Amino acid sequence: MSYSFGKNFKVTLFGQSHSENLGIVIEGISAGYKINKDLIRKNLERRRPGRNNFSTARKEDDDFKILSGEVEGITCGAPICAIIENKDQRSRDYENIKDRPRPSHADYPAYVKFKGFNDIRGGGQFSGRMTAPIVIAGSIAEDLLLKRGIKIFSRIKSLGDESDIDLNLNDIGEEKLYDLKNEDFPVFEDSAREKMQEEILRAKEEGDSLGGIVETFILNMPVGIGEPFFDSLESVISHAVFSVPGIRGIEFGSGFEAAKMCGSSHNDEYYYENGQVKTKTNKHGGIIGGLSSGMPIIFRTAVKPTSSIGKRQRTISLRDKKNVDLEIVGRHDPSIVPRALVAIEMITAIAILDLVMEGER
Amino acid sequence: MSYSFGKNFKVTLFGQSHSENLGIVIEGISAGYKINKDLIRKNLERRRPGRNNFSTARKEDDDFKILSGEVEGITCGAPICAIIENKDQRSRDYENIKDRPRPSHADYPAYVKFKGFNDIRGGGQFSGRMTAPIVIAGSIAEDLLLKRGIKIFSRIKSLGDESDIDLNLNDIGEEKLYDLKNEDFPVFEDSAREKMQEEILRAKEEGDSLGGIVETFILNMPVGIGEPFFDSLESVISHAVFSVPGIRGIEFGSGFEAAKMCGSSHNDEYYYENGQVKTKTNKHGGIIGGLSSGMPIIFRTAVKPTSSIGKRQRTISLRDKKNVDLEIVGRHDPSIVPRALVAIEMITAIAILDLVMEGER
Amino acid sequence: MSYSFGKNFKVTLFGQSHSENLGIVIEGISAGYKINKDLIRKNLERRRPGRNNFSTARKEDDDFKILSGEVEGITCGAPICAIIENKDQRSRDYENIKDRPRPSHADYPAYVKFKGFNDIRGGGQFSGRMTAPIVIAGSIAEDLLLKRGIKIFSRIKSLGDESDIDLNLNDIGEEKLYDLKNEDFPVFEDSAREKMQEEILRAKEEGDSLGGIVETFILNMPVGIGEPFFDSLESVISHAVFSVPGIRGIEFGSGFEAAKMCGSSHNDEYYYENGQVKTKTNKHGGIIGGLSSGMPIIFRTAVKPTSSIGKRQRTISLRDKKNVDLEIVGRHDPSIVPRALVAIEMITAIAILDLVMEGER
Amino acid sequence: MSYSFGKNFKVTLFGQSHSENLGIVIEGISAGYKINKDLIRKNLERRRPGRNNFSTARKEDDDFKILSGEVEGITCGAPICAIIENKDQRSRDYENIKDRPRPSHADYPAYVKFKGFNDIRGGGQFSGRMTAPIVIAGSIAEDLLLKRGIKIFSRIKSLGDESDIDLNLNDIGEEKLYDLKNEDFPVFEDSAREKMQEEILRAKEEGDSLGGIVETFILNMPVGIGEPFFDSLESVISHAVFSVPGIRGIEFGSGFEAAKMCGSSHNDEYYYENGQVKTKTNKHGGIIGGLSSGMPIIFRTAVKPTSSIGKRQRTISLRDKKNVDLEIVGRHDPSIVPRALVAIEMITAIAILDLVMEGER
Repeated sequence: MSYSFGKNFKVTLFGQSHSENLGIVIEGISAGYKINKDLIRKNLERRRPGRNNFSTARKEDDDFKILSGEVEGITCGAPICAIIENKDQRSRDYENIKDRPRPSHADYPAYVKFKGFNDIRGGGQFSGRMTAPIVIAGSIAEDLLLKRGIKIFSRIKSLGDESDIDLNLNDIGEEKLYDLKNEDFPVFEDSAREKMQEEILRAKEEGDSLGGIVETFILNMPVGIGEPFFDSLESVISHAVFSVPGIRGIEFGSGFEAAKMCGSSHNDEYYYENGQVKTKTNKHGGIIGGLSSGMPIIFRTAVKPTSSIGKRQRTISLRDKKNVDLEIVGRHDPSIVPRALVAIEMITAIAILDLVMEGER
Repeated sequence: MSYSFGKNFKVTLFGQSHSENLGIVIEGISAGYKINKDLIRKNLERRRPGRNNFSTARKEDDDFKILSGEVEGITCGAPICAIIENKDQRSRDYENIKDRPRPSHADYPAYVKFKGFNDIRGGGQFSGRMTAPIVIAGSIAEDLLLKRGIKIFSRIKSLGDESDIDLNLNDIGEEKLYDLKNEDFPVFEDSAREKMQEEILRAKEEGDSLGGIVETFILNMPVGIGEPFFDSLESVISHAVFSVPGIRGIEFGSGFEAAKMCGSSHNDEYYYENGQVKTKTNKHGGIIGGLSSGMPIIFRTAVKPTSSIGKRQRTISLRDKKNVDLEIVGRHDPSIVPRALVAIEMITAIAILDLVMEGER
Repeated sequence: MSYSFGKNFKVTLFGQSHSENLGIVIEGISAGYKINKDLIRKNLERRRPGRNNFSTARKEDDDFKILSGEVEGITCGAPICAIIENKDQRSRDYENIKDRPRPSHADYPAYVKFKGFNDIRGGGQFSGRMTAPIVIAGSIAEDLLLKRGIKIFSRIKSLGDESDIDLNLNDIGEEKLYDLKNEDFPVFEDSAREKMQEEILRAKEEGDSLGGIVETFILNMPVGIGEPFFDSLESVISHAVFSVPGIRGIEFGSGFEAAKMCGSSHNDEYYYENGQVKTKTNKHGGIIGGLSSGMPIIFRTAVKPTSSIGKRQRTISLRDKKNVDLEIVGRHDPSIVPRALVAIEMITAIAILDLVMEGER
Repeated sequence: MSYSFGKNFKVTLFGQSHSENLGIVIEGISAGYKINKDLIRKNLERRRPGRNNFSTARKEDDDFKILSGEVEGITCGAPICAIIENKDQRSRDYENIKDRPRPSHADYPAYVKFKGFNDIRGGGQFSGRMTAPIVIAGSIAEDLLLKRGIKIFSRIKSLGDESDIDLNLNDIGEEKLYDLKNEDFPVFEDSAREKMQEEILRAKEEGDSLGGIVETFILNMPVGIGEPFFDSLESVISHAVFSVPGIRGIEFGSGFEAAKMCGSSHNDEYYYENGQVKTKTNKHGGIIGGLSSGMPIIFRTAVKPTSSIGKRQRTISLRDKKNVDLEIVGRHDPSIVPRALVAIEMITAIAILDLVMEGER
């Protein structure tokens, strides 16, 4: 039982990849808020598959519908339930998949956990499609954060072997981040983007897939957000982010590099700038002792290569209890990184808003 | 409010570094369990500071006392409350610290969050000392996991620039892990241990500190543990582990390396071995789709260098609103990695047991 | 935020009286359970208004639809979301109601709480209609309890001044209870039923309404269900039951009569009957120390007279800040007791199943 | 697992009647609050046994100690843990009690639930003594409510067959309530008090016990406190109050009388008085639709007669599986009503503060 998240801005997710509807129930929004449906649509569009060559050819029509919690677009204090209808799922031979678990998909452990009753169609409750309703709730969270001045941005830091430029926010200025929201493929450097896209097309051609790293920035966090001991900012953000399918690692600020540093080079010294407390460097990534320091929050997330690949693989037949070959048919993202980026951003908005609201009490 | 963790094996932590007592309340243990006090003592001893040259010279006497929940050592179904008394805290000029926040310590954001009323003595509720009661609950969790055959081990993977050997569990065998519990300084290769210890002593001499990476292994997890969507194994483990002070990143299985891989080399193919489902490689680190696959769970945690260093640093005076110098006196761990390892292991035991119990329902 | 209930069998309710849909999300059902849709339909029919002269003339078509969580009628381990579509709400002059709060309706405190943004149409989130999705989840709970042999029944104990016979389960036998499920108007004694129905018709004619008492029986509870201290059986049942609109009191076993008794006459002595532990009397109503004793659980719930009455009443105009007259138009239940009975039974099933599952861990 | 209560002001209880300590952990208090230890002491004294002829001769020394969460009496934002040490428990032949469950005590269901490992000494975790730490947390809650102007009072409404006067707060004025806090035996009418005390002494002499009804008043509640649907004021108050051992029923406002009323006489009409919204009557007891209306909240709680009586009773021997006699030795309250009153008041303060804080978000 883990389809609910949050204490103050609380979401409850439901649906499977091919269920009649996917949806989400949202509690904790004050009455009188005008739901920003344009932002929801925009973010759903950013996450939508089938938009270009770099994502799956599979089309999903992500129109959403709000079933409850509003009167003429204004929240009334009751929970919001929003759903996305599933249309045009192709029917397939799913029995075959149930028998032959796909490598690095949840098929096998889900089969054991749910005694064979799990919904295998399209990955069921383990599908990346579950992040579509997350985008609805995340967009509302993003909007409620924006009203407080808090902004979240993400870029593709690396994809396969290609990397975007290293970034020092102090040097390039925060405005640089604002463009990321309007990019299909959000990186800073055009040449990096081109190389990454070339890599994706090559992987696609080879029936293979690629992973990457997403970097997320949160600006204008008030000081002192996050709760000691168990609900540190890192605890809550990582909890949320690892819910997104395909995430393998997360690091804050200096991250794994910190392990190689000595304290004298890792510590960020405080100073006053125009009466404001700042640090010259930001190796702490905007979080100290689990609390926001007022500096930009920065974290990086490792996304694995798409598990569904065109190449022939070895697996087992659960029925026959023997080793067999497997060929996965269907349309898949050669890299989920650009779409995972949106899911990460949205689920981060949910997590952050929840803690910000906790801090406002 | 975030001093509680867990749904089935639930802990509630209390105390500050220098409060009269630190303690923890544990709910969810069946009546009739004989509390393994030897294991608690052993793990407290592993975490205890002042044991050797590589940790702080500060002594803590971590005798614990169980206030409730047992009758003659056997649980009775009521919550267990266990405490550790604080003795011999040196009194200091803490007002000075309140005025001059130490770089990379929680001092400044805690000051803002708690409007100056936070307990600054020894770091208050942000102190690493908070992990002592975690060790009590974690030892009980470890014992209850052991009764199910599930074992947790950790080693220091790297410390500063020095690394232990790369490990392939399939090659070296699980028995190799068993020794780690009895090591003060748990690494596989003796020469690596020596080099790491030399690094620590050098840092100590220079009034500096070092970070490192802890690698944790969980053996014999049943298949299908972990809850979709929000309580994936990675979500719950990372939530718990980031509660330990000083953690900057976590990665599962192939981790950040996965970002550079293509699907055909990242996917772990299934096969049958003596009727058991296994994967030849374990890049998924024992977790697929947020659920345990039955293979060993492997994750790595980046620990930052101790924030308290002997070297002079720059900071601010909150009272005078100007930039000032700071010298931290007192005894500190030149590297918290060996002691953080125990805290990580213990808090992981709590998180894992909670999910295992959820899976048993 | 209080639209979720339960730890093991967890429901999250959404909707308002006149929102496009009302619905409920259910977590905690094992994969492989065949949803008993006949039982859902039967209980929805029992609760449905407009069935006879004794309830409102307003018709509601309570067809439900399951959006997620099943594959061909069998649960798959993902949350179930079920909805009821709202059709044919008559549009009204709701602004008038917002201005002139109806006596004993939630209108006024809801107006203050939600700063005037509350959904006033049909009572919004405070409407008795919210219990329709509760019936869906409650029917599933009832079915899962029946699989364990646990049965819930209710009767109208009194309505206005008319009472059904006093009951001693030991004397009349449990079979007597089984008929209650098939009764539109569940009482034991036909003559009492007739008198109650006459009272209702008289109240209806006078534009007035009537309250009553519902008595609920739970048979075959295992011994030891309920959790000390805060989740006693009485705590959890009363929490759930007071969620049903219009409840004013609840008493278990001897209830308020216990206050006039002395211990020697109130205590229920144990004895063995065919190797089973029983009590000769059941003044404890099947619950001792918050735990089930194995005897039938018996509790009574006081239901207030419907607040919407045809008679002219005095109230205030919030806009004009003066006292005014009010006449409520529309179709209302002259007594909600027969329909509240179903809601009480269903929400009790949810509460009981949650505790039974807790006890099975 | 049910030793925690509350979302905003959250308490976690631990201990058994004869454990080394009983205690409570409190989360959710802002940093900078000066703990009102005088109020804690005063309320502990009100609840303390052995104070006069009307309660048990057993003495308990309820000195409390705060282990964490404060610095020199001021909260620091960390959880407060407070404990009460248990001294001088007489050791007894508890094996005998385990074998022969006392009628209307939790002994038998607890034995089954905890497989015989329950702590039987003094009633273990089912003892009324568990309410002593509740008084500590409740006093802090009461103090935090007083800072908001919200006041809670209780009186003994009836004891055995004797009743205090009926009360119309509008007529007698709220000041009348203020004296109740300073009364050992809080009733309005002196003659009623005398008769009640005579009844108690008679029962004591006969080795018997008496029940009664406690009436509780909450003044100055802001309008709109309480959460729809599941956390109505009645739901949360009743959940809390039924946690106190020995409660058999609760009713709000008109309570069970409402069942006999018709709507036209039960509805409370609104009017303006000096610009304030009021109702002329208060049959709704200050709660409509689960929300506070601004009128005084009034509820009554039925307390059963003490289960421990001096008279010989019949019970069973679990070991011998036969019916046997039982004589309970020891010192017991002939009526727990005066002491339960304090526990009800304190646990109500916890519940109310939690909802008030929820409403302030």
